[in-house]
Amino acid sequence: MAAQKTVFIGIIGVGGVGKCFLSQLKGVTERLAKNPRNPALAVVFMSRSTTNIYSADYSPLSLDTSAETVAASKQDVLSTAKLIEYLAAAPGKAVVVDNTSAQDVAEQYPEFLAKGVSVVTPNKKAFSGSYALWEAIFGAAAKSGAKVYHESSVGAGLPVISTVKDLVETGDEVTKIEGVFSGTMSFLFNSFAPTEGEGGKWAAEVKKAKELGYTEPDPRDDLNGLDVARKLTILARLVGLKIESPTSFPVQSLIPKELESCSSGDEFMQRLPEFDSQMEEVKLAAQAQGKVVRFVGSIDVAKGEVKVGLEMFDKSHPIAALKGSDNIISFYTKRYSASPLIIQGSGAGGEVTAMGVVGDLLKVVAQL
Amino acid sequence: MAAQKTVFIGIIGVGGVGKCFLSQLKGVTERLAKNPRNPALAVVFMSRSTTNIYSADYSPLSLDTSAETVAASKQDVLSTAKLIEYLAAAPGKAVVVDNTSAQDVAEQYPEFLAKGVSVVTPNKKAFSGSYALWEAIFGAAAKSGAKVYHESSVGAGLPVISTVKDLVETGDEVTKIEGVFSGTMSFLFNSFAPTEGEGGKWAAEVKKAKELGYTEPDPRDDLNGLDVARKLTILARLVGLKIESPTSFPVQSLIPKELESCSSGDEFMQRLPEFDSQMEEVKLAAQAQGKVVRFVGSIDVAKGEVKVGLEMFDKSHPIAALKGSDNIISFYTKRYSASPLIIQGSGAGGEVTAMGVVGDLLKVVAQL
Repeated sequence: MAAQKTVFIGIIGVGGVGKCFLSQLKGVTERLAKNPRNPALAVVFMSRSTTNIYSADYSPLSLDTSAETVAASKQDVLSTAKLIEYLAAAPGKAVVVDNTSAQDVAEQYPEFLAKGVSVVTPNKKAFSGSYALWEAIFGAAAKSGAKVYHESSVGAGLPVISTVKDLVETGDEVTKIEGVFSGTMSFLFNSFAPTEGEGGKWAAEVKKAKELGYTEPDPRDDLNGLDVARKLTILARLVGLKIESPTSFPVQSLIPKELESCSSGDEFMQRLPEFDSQMEEVKLAAQAQGKVVRFVGSIDVAKGEVKVGLEMFDKSHPIAALKGSDNIISFYTKRYSASPLIIQGSGAGGEVTAMGVVGDLLKVVAQL
Repeated sequence: MAAQKTVFIGIIGVGGVGKCFLSQLKGVTERLAKNPRNPALAVVFMSRSTTNIYSADYSPLSLDTSAETVAASKQDVLSTAKLIEYLAAAPGKAVVVDNTSAQDVAEQYPEFLAKGVSVVTPNKKAFSGSYALWEAIFGAAAKSGAKVYHESSVGAGLPVISTVKDLVETGDEVTKIEGVFSGTMSFLFNSFAPTEGEGGKWAAEVKKAKELGYTEPDPRDDLNGLDVARKLTILARLVGLKIESPTSFPVQSLIPKELESCSSGDEFMQRLPEFDSQMEEVKLAAQAQGKVVRFVGSIDVAKGEVKVGLEMFDKSHPIAALKGSDNIISFYTKRYSASPLIIQGSGAGGEVTAMGVVGDLLKVVAQL
């Protein structure tokens, strides 16, 4: 039998999602160690925003290393270029796990991949930026044989990306994808326009969602629709549409025009109630038809159309019946033509996001 | 760059699901051929019930070979033992694809795996037979490094098995699995006890389902609940329960006691209307509580309890709201605690079953 294979792992970002990731990775490593046929996972690099630790001789770092320890590290900081060099020179295959949502790291993926370093990440930025970056990433991977997995970039740990890939790779024709892709928007509309009862006023619901931690620190980052547009960009590209960027198709922003110039999220939240009547009108228009309003994204593959915004649904429609902050994604395909293949569940949060990343890492490692 | 890798494939069963499989595989092979980094897939063996064709020198057979050509083959028939020998001696890694639902083939999986031949199959029998066979299969795979993938054994192409595996492997704790696991049962109860309207009489709905091809040729093979029990057995074992067999937990049969002795399916169908009042009572009891009745399977992991049978659900419950012949599977876990991770869609049919098999084959080939 061949000697046990070791795969070397660099982790960018060990707070937030990264913290959950490390904790899950520890369990995985212990399980893998039980069968010598499994590869050993050696984490050799960890970074936070401005600090890092790494082992010059590629011996594994402890998975108990805390984010605080990394933050307090005095070790020389590797630039991304140096990190690529370091991982590419490891005495075995290497994977970089990018737990950040940073644009600058995302832009370096083609360099990692060209040097044979696989990429695993929940970071949406790389896959929803310019189409040129998308092509550079997958072109570099096809050439070097390194892998790129990004399950958690849409719906966190829900099996969304893997399902699209399975459909496409086995030759199904995806005709339409539709769903609620934001936990924040889901929570807001399930409370604002429930299928039973009246629901609250719009601004009050946004305030409640913010207080419960369902929104970004500045809720405008959710209400502008860009997060949903990024996810739609990724899915549309996976089914073969050449989407130039997340701003190259219609995206309805729920930030009133008059509040676009607010200098702070606080000012925005203070003035939002002035516009309650606008949203109330939308709710009542739906009610008049026996429907409810939801913030959805959809991709019509044949027409090449992607759009994000408010739409009305019958109360019995699965999108209307969603609860809490759940996501729902429906795939209409040639094979799933009578009724769609539906995936539903929590689409945000550290643990489920990390789960998608760890699951991807296991799939990549099994192929190296 | 290393020379292109070839993976050798033997296919047991090229009619029905096997026919769809071959057609999908042809598309996949053409796509893979576009990048020399991808492995080449060489199908070297195909069989039907009593005939086979294979290439003695492991040169690839045409993927346009029809089921009829295989049926008309005069080539010497390889026993399963000979097939294992033949595939194990291929000049590269080998995979057997079992598109049958045969018990005797299933019982040979440990031998294939022990010889390093990976197994890909929609066949439920191996994974829902005795626990000893389950242990022999996964024990042999762990020892040799060969892979076993069986996505289509539950819910056809729906990502059910892969999701359970991802949850378990990344360290989540599955607490409960519940759902409608049979397209036949789904169709029957969605028509017999719809959320809106009255629905038909039981025997008439069974007759309709049979005429539309939603049941097995003998509907008793659906109504006895064993098909659902087999799927539950597989899922329960994947989350760690040692289920001895699909008959070692409570399974409610919808075959009236008085009709158990019917000598044929036709006699059964003729006499079934005599028992309409029994099922009508069940429907009315649910209606009296504002609910509907459904045929479901559930696994309570903490209690180690598996059961299959009739249960009542609120009309707004996702299980009640199911349409057509769709399956729905809900995973309640530590991470998905507020609301379950739900997968829904068509769970039967040649194309979607084959899709699960082809998807599995691609995942296995990527690891060889």
